[in-house]
Amino acid sequence: MEIIKAKHSGFCFGVKRAIDMVNKLLKEKDGPIYTIGPIIHNGEVVTLLQDKGVIPVDDIRSIKKGTVVYRTHGILKEEEEYLKSKRLRVVDATCPLVKKVRQEAVKLRKNGYKVVIVGDKNHQEVKSILSYIENDGIVIDDPQEVKGKKIGVVSQTTQSRELLKKVVDRLLEGPQEVRIVNTICEAVELRLREALKMAEIADAMIVVGGKESSNTKKLYKAIKEVRARSYHIEHECELNPSWFKGIHVVGLTGGTSTPDFLIDRIFYGIKSLCGGKDGGDS
Amino acid sequence: MEIIKAKHSGFCFGVKRAIDMVNKLLKEKDGPIYTIGPIIHNGEVVTLLQDKGVIPVDDIRSIKKGTVVYRTHGILKEEEEYLKSKRLRVVDATCPLVKKVRQEAVKLRKNGYKVVIVGDKNHQEVKSILSYIENDGIVIDDPQEVKGKKIGVVSQTTQSRELLKKVVDRLLEGPQEVRIVNTICEAVELRLREALKMAEIADAMIVVGGKESSNTKKLYKAIKEVRARSYHIEHECELNPSWFKGIHVVGLTGGTSTPDFLIDRIFYGIKSLCGGKDGGDS
Repeated sequence: MEIIKAKHSGFCFGVKRAIDMVNKLLKEKDGPIYTIGPIIHNGEVVTLLQDKGVIPVDDIRSIKKGTVVYRTHGILKEEEEYLKSKRLRVVDATCPLVKKVRQEAVKLRKNGYKVVIVGDKNHQEVKSILSYIENDGIVIDDPQEVKGKKIGVVSQTTQSRELLKKVVDRLLEGPQEVRIVNTICEAVELRLREALKMAEIADAMIVVGGKESSNTKKLYKAIKEVRARSYHIEHECELNPSWFKGIHVVGLTGGTSTPDFLIDRIFYGIKSLCGGKDGGDS
Repeated sequence: MEIIKAKHSGFCFGVKRAIDMVNKLLKEKDGPIYTIGPIIHNGEVVTLLQDKGVIPVDDIRSIKKGTVVYRTHGILKEEEEYLKSKRLRVVDATCPLVKKVRQEAVKLRKNGYKVVIVGDKNHQEVKSILSYIENDGIVIDDPQEVKGKKIGVVSQTTQSRELLKKVVDRLLEGPQEVRIVNTICEAVELRLREALKMAEIADAMIVVGGKESSNTKKLYKAIKEVRARSYHIEHECELNPSWFKGIHVVGLTGGTSTPDFLIDRIFYGIKSLCGGKDGGDS
């Protein structure tokens, strides 16, 4: 059995940046380090950082001293204001692309646009954007009519371009001005395109990443449509030997918050299960 | 044989406004009245106005005195400047919707957008828009890649919404911000929708309007796709008895620059040819 590992896997630029910032702080050894919620949507990495002393908290009011690191998905405006008021030291590890979405949404609203966010209303990134526009926007995840003279559209960075296009197509049915600030992350798309090509030649696909990770979930969903024998796992212990029976080629990829070392562990996990040979990078 | 006449036919708001302005000027009897090119794309109406003394000219430099009426499709910026420099009296009969497209294009350019005009580069409306943005824009009539960080899209008023959507869909492939000022004329669309419904129940369709009229040509093209037995005519003398052989229902519609009286004349023309009964308004 051959195992093909995606060239575009491992941390994306924004995740790598955030983890580097935390590691730098850890080296300083200057008091406790907190994150509000998980810094990235990968349990394995969050646990590793916890072992080093990085504490994810749900309630920022529990933080009395130390440094607070903003997660890659962004912080709520009210949280930021609270931290400022308490004069706590903050380190902003928000993905710069996510921050751009927020800034563009704020600008659109300021210029009189009704803000439409194409995204998942339960995702932290979307919650963060909404909080910065005083919740004066709507979140949609399917094409629909939107009232208003001027509609400003931004997209959660990990949304699919196809959905954005469908939403815009529907908005153009109306008489209004539509302004789209294209905030889709190209790294996510590149990864998806490569994985879809792999899925066409592989007999089975393994997608590695947090179950909460928006881009991993979308990656898995898209791959599953091409290759029914696809599995989304977080950890090598989830590997099941039955998945690889009669299989010649396995494709291996992961979300933008999946570290290389985890991909590698799963690579060797599959190998030891099945005696697979190394197909190298795709 | 039954003849169904479209409810939405006759002059649109912009054309009616322009003709009213010219008629008011004619009543004033205050020197010669000129238009630069035809005031509207309907030869019958232009001839009627010519009989009353309204002179369409190609070269504005030939105008020495009198009043110059801007055509519904808009004037070139350099023409407007010339007329101002000569202190000639001008009356602006540009369709307000066409003027809006021009203003929006100017605004987009000023705000750093690369201006894309979805339209026909040979149409006067598009030439007018381009002249007001110092020819710093591109005209496209099919989906294509456009370079630039910020793309501002306007549409010739008589363009199809479907084409606009396809163009935007293609632009959203790129990484840039896309701002669409939806400048499609709803009156044109309403007319089209009604005509398409008629074409489904009629055995033959007659579309009345100038052969240069952008909206009439598009109306005819769309109808022809639904009802192969469709004819675009300018005048009742073009009616051919063979078109109505074995036909039970004829649909009759016209472009936005086609006067009611012409539609009526063609209605009675068909009737006298075939002894058709009046089906009334659709």
